[in-house]
Amino acid sequence: MNTFEAATATPALMTDMYEYTMLEAALKDGTAQRQSVFEVYSRHLPGDRRYGVVAGLGRLLPLIENFRPNEAQLKFLRDRHVISADTQKWLENYTFHGTIRAYREGEVYFPNSPILQVETTFGEGTLLETLILSVLNYDSAVATAASRIVTAAQGRPCMDMGGRRANEYSAIAAARASIVGGFAGTANLAAAMAYDLPAIGTAAHSFTLVHDNEEQAFRSQVDALGTSTTLLTDTYNVEEAITRAVEVAGTDLGGIRIDSGDLASMAQQARSQLDALGATHTKITVTNDLDEYSLLNLRDAPVDSYGVGTRLVTGSGHPTSEMVYKLVERESADGRMQGVAKHAAHKASDAWRKGAWRSYRYNVADAEYVVAGSQRDVEAWGKQHEGEDMRPLLITAIDHGDVDSSLATPQALLAARDYHRQQLEALPIVSRSFKAGDPAIPTLVEHVDPEGGQAES
Amino acid sequence: MNTFEAATATPALMTDMYEYTMLEAALKDGTAQRQSVFEVYSRHLPGDRRYGVVAGLGRLLPLIENFRPNEAQLKFLRDRHVISADTQKWLENYTFHGTIRAYREGEVYFPNSPILQVETTFGEGTLLETLILSVLNYDSAVATAASRIVTAAQGRPCMDMGGRRANEYSAIAAARASIVGGFAGTANLAAAMAYDLPAIGTAAHSFTLVHDNEEQAFRSQVDALGTSTTLLTDTYNVEEAITRAVEVAGTDLGGIRIDSGDLASMAQQARSQLDALGATHTKITVTNDLDEYSLLNLRDAPVDSYGVGTRLVTGSGHPTSEMVYKLVERESADGRMQGVAKHAAHKASDAWRKGAWRSYRYNVADAEYVVAGSQRDVEAWGKQHEGEDMRPLLITAIDHGDVDSSLATPQALLAARDYHRQQLEALPIVSRSFKAGDPAIPTLVEHVDPEGGQAES
Repeated sequence: MNTFEAATATPALMTDMYEYTMLEAALKDGTAQRQSVFEVYSRHLPGDRRYGVVAGLGRLLPLIENFRPNEAQLKFLRDRHVISADTQKWLENYTFHGTIRAYREGEVYFPNSPILQVETTFGEGTLLETLILSVLNYDSAVATAASRIVTAAQGRPCMDMGGRRANEYSAIAAARASIVGGFAGTANLAAAMAYDLPAIGTAAHSFTLVHDNEEQAFRSQVDALGTSTTLLTDTYNVEEAITRAVEVAGTDLGGIRIDSGDLASMAQQARSQLDALGATHTKITVTNDLDEYSLLNLRDAPVDSYGVGTRLVTGSGHPTSEMVYKLVERESADGRMQGVAKHAAHKASDAWRKGAWRSYRYNVADAEYVVAGSQRDVEAWGKQHEGEDMRPLLITAIDHGDVDSSLATPQALLAARDYHRQQLEALPIVSRSFKAGDPAIPTLVEHVDPEGGQAES
Repeated sequence: MNTFEAATATPALMTDMYEYTMLEAALKDGTAQRQSVFEVYSRHLPGDRRYGVVAGLGRLLPLIENFRPNEAQLKFLRDRHVISADTQKWLENYTFHGTIRAYREGEVYFPNSPILQVETTFGEGTLLETLILSVLNYDSAVATAASRIVTAAQGRPCMDMGGRRANEYSAIAAARASIVGGFAGTANLAAAMAYDLPAIGTAAHSFTLVHDNEEQAFRSQVDALGTSTTLLTDTYNVEEAITRAVEVAGTDLGGIRIDSGDLASMAQQARSQLDALGATHTKITVTNDLDEYSLLNLRDAPVDSYGVGTRLVTGSGHPTSEMVYKLVERESADGRMQGVAKHAAHKASDAWRKGAWRSYRYNVADAEYVVAGSQRDVEAWGKQHEGEDMRPLLITAIDHGDVDSSLATPQALLAARDYHRQQLEALPIVSRSFKAGDPAIPTLVEHVDPEGGQAES
C-alpha cells in the first residue's frame, strides 16, 4: 500500500486539520460532548442562477458510515502532534451517533435552504465539516449544470463524456451527479460499475488514425461491435466518411458521431445525406464543448443525442456550490439548547436549527419557508401550517447513527432523477431561463426562536 | 467492499468505455500491436494566460504502474459486453511496457508544448487516455492558479484551504498541485499524509460558538495547542477579540486569523492594535475567497500569510487545462512509422512525434521549439542545435515499462516547486502579468518529417 492508499483507506483524513485540533481542545474542556446542530446552506446561488440541485447525499452516507481513522491514520495524527493519546482513544471508539436530516437528492434549493442538518455532539459534528462540504459542493455543482443542460436538450438524451477534464475521482462523482440532473448515461466505466449506470462510447479519432485508412477502421469497428455501433465521421472528410460508413455497415448503422466544426449545419447535412442513402434510422450524436447555451443553438438541428464533457464536470462555469457548514445551535453550560451565529459585520448567519417547507399556489411553487427556532418551536410551526399547500423538505437520512441505506442505492439514484424533474416542473417557469437573475422563488426566513432571531454573543 | 470501492480498487476503470471497445476491435484486427506515439498537449492556454504549469506526473506514475483491471473489474467488463474472452486474457497479462517522456513537474508550458508522450503499442496507449488527461488536466489547472497566486503574494506564504470546495479526492490532488505552484502547506490531512506535506489549521467559528463565550474558546485553544496557536478573531467583534486574545495567550500569541470583511483595512487595524498591545511578533493570517487579483490588492496590508480556498482548487476561473491526448504517429502495414493527424476543418493537429526545446537569449526564454518528425529526424534536429542556448524539455519518466519512481517522491515534489520558480523567473517578465494576452514566449513548430508536415489521410 502506498502512502496515498494509506491516506485514503478510510475517509477520516478527508478533512481539514482544524477539525481534529478543535476536537482535541473540545475533548479537553468538555465542550466536545455538547449537543449541537450544524447546517449546510449556501448564501447565494452561483452565477445568479434561478435554482440549485442537491446531489451527493447517496454518496455521502457510506463515507460517514466509514468515517473512522484506522491504525495507520491514527499514527499519522499522533506523529504530527495533531491529537493526544486521549483523543486517539476517543477516535478508536468513534462512530457517528447523530441524526442527519437533508434535502433529498434531486431536490431544488435556494439561498439559505438548510440543505443538510447534523444533530449530534460538537465533537462528532465538527469532524464531518470538510467531507460533507466536499461531496455536496461538487456533486451539486455538477447536478445543477446537468439539470440546465438537460432542459436545453429538450428531450434529447445527454451523455456524460467529461471524465478526462476532471480529476479521476471527480469524474466518477460527476457521472453520478449528472444522472441526478437528468443525464441518461456516462462514458466513465468506474462510475458505471460503482453506481450501475448505463455506459456509452465506441471510438476516438485515434482508432481511425491507427488504421491504414478510414474504411478499414470502420470495418474493424463494425466487425467487433456490430452494425448498431456509432462511427466517428469527422477524422478526415465528413461527407465521404458518411458514405463510407453506410457502405461498410449498411443502412442499419446505429449512429454517427460528429465532434468538431459547426455542429448544427453538419448535423443537418449528415441527416440529409443519411436519409438519401437510406439510413433513415441512423442516429446522429454530436459532441464538442457543449453546454446549455450551445444546446439552445442546436435546438433546430436534427441531432438525436448529446455527449457533454468539460462544461458538465466543471459545473458549466461554476465548479463549486459555495455551500458552508455552520454551527447554529448548541447546548449551553446549563444544559439548555441555544441558537448561535457569527456576528461580525460580514457573512452573518441565522442562529437556531431550521425547518424547511415549500409552499405552492395552484401547484406552482411560490416560496421556500425557512423557519429558525428551537426544535419544539419549529415543529409547532409545521403543525400550525398543516393542511396548507406546503411540503416539508427535510428527510431523515441518519437517525441516531442508523443510516437509511435505501438512499444510497442505484434505484435511489434513478428515483432522484425523476424526483428532480418533478420538482423542477413545479417551479415558476422562469426557473428554465438561463439568464442570470433572482432565484425562481423567494426564501422567507421566519424566526420562531425564543429570542426572536437574536442569538447570544 | 462496496461497489465504489470495487470500481476504484485499481485505476483501470478510470477510463472512458471507448478505450476498451477500441482495444477490443484493435485486438481483433491486429492494429492493437502497432507501435504508436500518443501526445498530450493543449491548443491554447485557458483564459489567455501567459503560461501554464505542468503538474500531476508524480501522481500519475503509480496509477499507470497499477493500471490493470482486477478480477471483479474484468467480470464487470465481460458482463457489460465491453470486452470478449480474448481481450480479457490480454488484460489479465497487461502491464504497461512502453516509454513515457514528459515535461517535468513544475515546468511551464505553452500552446502545443508536447507535455507528455506515450510510445508503445496502440492497445496499451489507447487504454491510458482518460486517466492521463484526468490527472494532468486537473493538477495542472490548480498548479497554474497556485503559481499566479504565489506570484501575487510577493513572498508571503500561501496555504491551501480549499478542500471543502472540491470533490474529496480532488482536494488531495489540489493540495499536492498547489505545492508545485509554490504553496507552503495545506489544511488537508489526507494530502499531508499521502505526500508528506506541512499541514496547518487551528479553529473555525464553530469552536468559538460552541463555548459560552469567546474568552473560554480562546483559553481552551491555548490550553490545548499552546500560545503559538492562531486564534480566529472575527466571530463577534474583531477589536475586542484581539484584546481578549492577547489577554489569554500573552504577547507570545502565535497568530490571529481574519476571515471576513475588508481584509486590508482589518489587517492594518489588527497590526496596529497588536503592536500597541506588545504582541509585535504575532502573525496575521487572512482568508476568504482569495485569488491572485485580491492578493494584489492586499500587497500593502500588514499580512503575514494567506489561506487560499475556492479559487485555488477551481483553478482560479479555469478548473481544467483543456489538454488533449492524440495519436500522432504509428506503424503502418509495411512496418514503417508514419505521422498521422485528424484532418477535418477544425481542431487539426500536427502529425509525428514532437521534440521540445526552450531557447534563451541572455538567460531569458525567447521561444518554445516544438519539432515534429520521425524519431531520427527529431534527434538530428537536437544534435544540430547542440551548443546553442537551448534546453531540451522532455525527460523519460517510464523507460520500456521501467518507472522512474524518483519522480514520485515527496522530495521530487519539493524539487518541482523550486524548479518551477526557476523556470518562471527565466521567462519574460510579461509572464507575471495577470492581464489576458499572448503566451509569454511563442511556440515555433518546425516540421522535420519526411513529408514536410503533411500526414497521410
